[in-house]
Amino acid sequence: MDLLKERIMKDGTALSDTVLKVDEFLNHQIDPELMVEIGKEFKRRFSNKKIDKILTLESSGIAPSVMAGLEFGVPVVFARKRKSLTLDDGLLTADVYSYTKQETNNIAVAEKFITPGDNILIIDDFLANGEAANALIHIVKKAQANVSGIGIVIEKSFQKGGRELRDNGYHVESLARIESLSEGSIKFLDEVTN
Amino acid sequence: MDLLKERIMKDGTALSDTVLKVDEFLNHQIDPELMVEIGKEFKRRFSNKKIDKILTLESSGIAPSVMAGLEFGVPVVFARKRKSLTLDDGLLTADVYSYTKQETNNIAVAEKFITPGDNILIIDDFLANGEAANALIHIVKKAQANVSGIGIVIEKSFQKGGRELRDNGYHVESLARIESLSEGSIKFLDEVTN
Repeated sequence: MDLLKERIMKDGTALSDTVLKVDEFLNHQIDPELMVEIGKEFKRRFSNKKIDKILTLESSGIAPSVMAGLEFGVPVVFARKRKSLTLDDGLLTADVYSYTKQETNNIAVAEKFITPGDNILIIDDFLANGEAANALIHIVKKAQANVSGIGIVIEKSFQKGGRELRDNGYHVESLARIESLSEGSIKFLDEVTN
Repeated sequence: MDLLKERIMKDGTALSDTVLKVDEFLNHQIDPELMVEIGKEFKRRFSNKKIDKILTLESSGIAPSVMAGLEFGVPVVFARKRKSLTLDDGLLTADVYSYTKQETNNIAVAEKFITPGDNILIIDDFLANGEAANALIHIVKKAQANVSGIGIVIEKSFQKGGRELRDNGYHVESLARIESLSEGSIKFLDEVTN
């Protein structure tokens, strides 16, 4: 998605070999117009899939998901990060290890919002080692629902998440795929534009 | 806003005299179409104000704010809730006491996103005692920016936040104002429809 790649080049910062900062338009400040275009692009890439609902993770996944939800005409559910492990009643839960923060969070979705047979599009802002995506997949499976696809705004292709998910048969669409962040320079993976 | 009130009556639940659950369309599951209408209504209600940026609080404030940002043609910044009080460098911070959770959270916005003279529309999902709104006002003032208005999706008018903010001269617009949640029944404040 050229518009997104251009924006990453303009406003993104490679803080290290593994950390890309995009707080100008996605992670802290949000550009609503860009989110509309991201929603449309997800719709285009998953146009052949049956999607009943979008599942994301608070907070940075919410804006792109809501715009995608508008395009697909479906509700969006965001998993909540939880401090404590109390009160699992009526909740679908999973653990997410954050390499960046070096801590494990528990995430939860109310059972009533994902029901057996639902076709779920998972959307998230970043895909790196796949921890968040796998936790969301775990929640969908616990609910006996189906993962129709995984839509990612920015994939760090040099980390293992994307490869593993595709190897496991998931349809992953990443709107920008980063090949390298070495030496403060952002390089995209060469892709055939479709 | 009739559409919102109808939705609250249909899907909202008065869990107690003070707690209204709206996780079907706003706080956990999000209805994107309703968010579009909420964005348009905020635009209508603040159409005479100069707005450079929208400031909200993660996570439930994000969806209505992004749709409002689209209508106003301005960026949205969401304040982050923080676990620890480390690393204040370059951050505008404030404390928020949650009566529901009975805990104090620190919220933070990067200084670079609110600059002196900016005209800020604060948007949040709920207004009860005004803790979150006052913390966001505090952040705007710290940045030497101006509060152009405060847009609230659901105001619990029987709690003090809305009255105090209006008494202090702020232009507060709440799309639904709840007069009472007593005995499991949701009652709206009588308002002249404008």
